[in-house]
Amino acid sequence: MSSLTVPVPASLLLPLKVPYRLMLGPGPSNVPPRILSAGGRPIIGHMHKEMFEIMDDIKKGIQYAFQTKNELTMAISGSGHAAMEAALYNAVERGETVLIGVNGIWGERAADISERMGADAKRLVKLPGECFTLQEIEQALSKHKPVLFFITHGESSTGIAHPLDGLGALCHKYNCLLLVDSVASLGGAPIYMDKQEIDILYSGSQKVLNAPPGTAPISFSERAKQKIFSRETKPVSFYLDMGWLANYWGCDGKPRVYHHTGPVSGFFALRESLAILAEQGLENNWKHHQEMALYLHQGLEKLGLKLFVKDKNLRLPTVTTIAVPEGYDWRDITAYIMKNYSMEITGGLGPSVGMVLRVGLMGYNCTKANADLVLQALGDALQHCQKSKV
Amino acid sequence: MSSLTVPVPASLLLPLKVPYRLMLGPGPSNVPPRILSAGGRPIIGHMHKEMFEIMDDIKKGIQYAFQTKNELTMAISGSGHAAMEAALYNAVERGETVLIGVNGIWGERAADISERMGADAKRLVKLPGECFTLQEIEQALSKHKPVLFFITHGESSTGIAHPLDGLGALCHKYNCLLLVDSVASLGGAPIYMDKQEIDILYSGSQKVLNAPPGTAPISFSERAKQKIFSRETKPVSFYLDMGWLANYWGCDGKPRVYHHTGPVSGFFALRESLAILAEQGLENNWKHHQEMALYLHQGLEKLGLKLFVKDKNLRLPTVTTIAVPEGYDWRDITAYIMKNYSMEITGGLGPSVGMVLRVGLMGYNCTKANADLVLQALGDALQHCQKSKV
Repeated sequence: MSSLTVPVPASLLLPLKVPYRLMLGPGPSNVPPRILSAGGRPIIGHMHKEMFEIMDDIKKGIQYAFQTKNELTMAISGSGHAAMEAALYNAVERGETVLIGVNGIWGERAADISERMGADAKRLVKLPGECFTLQEIEQALSKHKPVLFFITHGESSTGIAHPLDGLGALCHKYNCLLLVDSVASLGGAPIYMDKQEIDILYSGSQKVLNAPPGTAPISFSERAKQKIFSRETKPVSFYLDMGWLANYWGCDGKPRVYHHTGPVSGFFALRESLAILAEQGLENNWKHHQEMALYLHQGLEKLGLKLFVKDKNLRLPTVTTIAVPEGYDWRDITAYIMKNYSMEITGGLGPSVGMVLRVGLMGYNCTKANADLVLQALGDALQHCQKSKV
Repeated sequence: MSSLTVPVPASLLLPLKVPYRLMLGPGPSNVPPRILSAGGRPIIGHMHKEMFEIMDDIKKGIQYAFQTKNELTMAISGSGHAAMEAALYNAVERGETVLIGVNGIWGERAADISERMGADAKRLVKLPGECFTLQEIEQALSKHKPVLFFITHGESSTGIAHPLDGLGALCHKYNCLLLVDSVASLGGAPIYMDKQEIDILYSGSQKVLNAPPGTAPISFSERAKQKIFSRETKPVSFYLDMGWLANYWGCDGKPRVYHHTGPVSGFFALRESLAILAEQGLENNWKHHQEMALYLHQGLEKLGLKLFVKDKNLRLPTVTTIAVPEGYDWRDITAYIMKNYSMEITGGLGPSVGMVLRVGLMGYNCTKANADLVLQALGDALQHCQKSKV
């Protein structure tokens, strides 16, 4: 007689069903066959020397993508949010003050995480879609004397690419580290970690890099390293402890010891995506994303749609935000396009829900053909979706 | 002229090289083609309804594997260590006392994490390879009055399968939650979450389940849920916050909102691995692992090797620990087998380093042919590796 009280679930005996989707939202973007194939290679051990060589390549690829020579560079075994926590957990101690630029969802979350770990989070707040001036930031730095300032480069909930020039030097004048989120911008919009004096930079695998979600590039400057490795208390997370991770990623010059089992297949895929970026060249990629974004923006305006970000120089090339056209329910539009085109475009996120539609053209998905297709789908949706109230 | 200061890394332009390995160590184990293929399917969005159906199947598969009806059941977007942190972060608040059974590396790490998050960790310590009696545990519960007791079911660093019967009821007598780590045992050794009154149980994807590392099944009892959802403070991690994750996994009956981007490909693979377990049947799998372990143990003894765990009833069927044979350096043996058989077996881990060799026969890898191959490799190594000192 069986000792089991929970029977085999019937639905699990049916085959895995995965529909085809054209992923033109803010991410994840489609994973090209070459990266899927790399991720599908038979696995090896997380501590095998061939794995360490693959991790070394990943590190070099991230250094290239970030434009940094930082030794402390690696991929976190988790999504972009895990990298956000890794940055804050390691660089900040309980009771310290941090300054968070909140002009969209990512700043809100960085402030939330800072408070959870016991930091004093001061919020510098703007409306979604607005940017901070250097003067505003300097005032806040001077007033709060934070150990770290957080800002989002590619604000994918609002469609802003926040200017970064001068920010690093300004933070350093106030003995403050600069932490930048580039999840939605890396590879698609210019960023220079060393030249711009960014102390901590992280990104995600599933946007321009076109790898599956689950790994997150991150890098720390010498200045950040010094703060991290002279802390008085251990970071709250063992999984994300940079002392352990520096060793796992061969950044501390010591023999590697077991920390955790990294996502081997995810690392295979991430290496392939960084290889593709290296083959194409960072500057070519930036230029291409900029050109395709302009092409898309012109097409949207021809459809009578309005871009949410008014200032052309502040528009994020990877994720475009469109003001929800008057009289329409945004849900009808995204649902129509999903149903008729098997295409993902999305509504807003966090503070921009109800205000925008979002279209992403990232990496492998960043083509004229995809721009044309999403314009066709949007034009079609505007004709067929019912205007609820005028 | 280029604005870049960090050039393209030459090694990244070479193709990805992954050697073939027979993974007969303590994990990760080989991923069968069917699971690799599922993980290599083109991805969809983390918030698409088809993705939620896949996550629902994963949840049911975990409920079956854990033998639980718990509603709050899901996979964490990280390795087993992330699940360990998720358990402790959510079930414990700063300042509370926890009791940690330390008889190998996993207890050490649970104690470390508890202290990092500000809990008062009391250690109940035994030598590696030893178990705790119910009396010893009761004494400690009575003395320390902890809110949670941690114990490892499949102690893969020492080769122990710790008895669990009676432990849940004992903990509950002292108003204490029972947290069990089954990373190395799930699917290969009997465990009954509901019947054994386990409050929090977690595992990993890369052992008996044979999925790539990077996702970690976890489940919470009603009792655990009540403590978690009546906490006074937020858990230290947003990424691992069970309030958010309960919503993401459809466990709270509310419409799902964006939390983080789950590892879509990892979830495809995990669903497939749980489907295979369901097809084969949990009890068949337990029986098969037990039989193969006995076959391996007999073969090892025929080679003149000694098993590290003396008591046959306490031997973990998935990971076998062998006492390092006298006069040999364990490193020579694992290196010889890696070089000549492209096969991974490993030395000890944490407190068992230098004491043991470890062989894993898990899931897809748990076959008579693999047992024969590892016995041949070990016999060969014993003949060819130099005895350093006798």
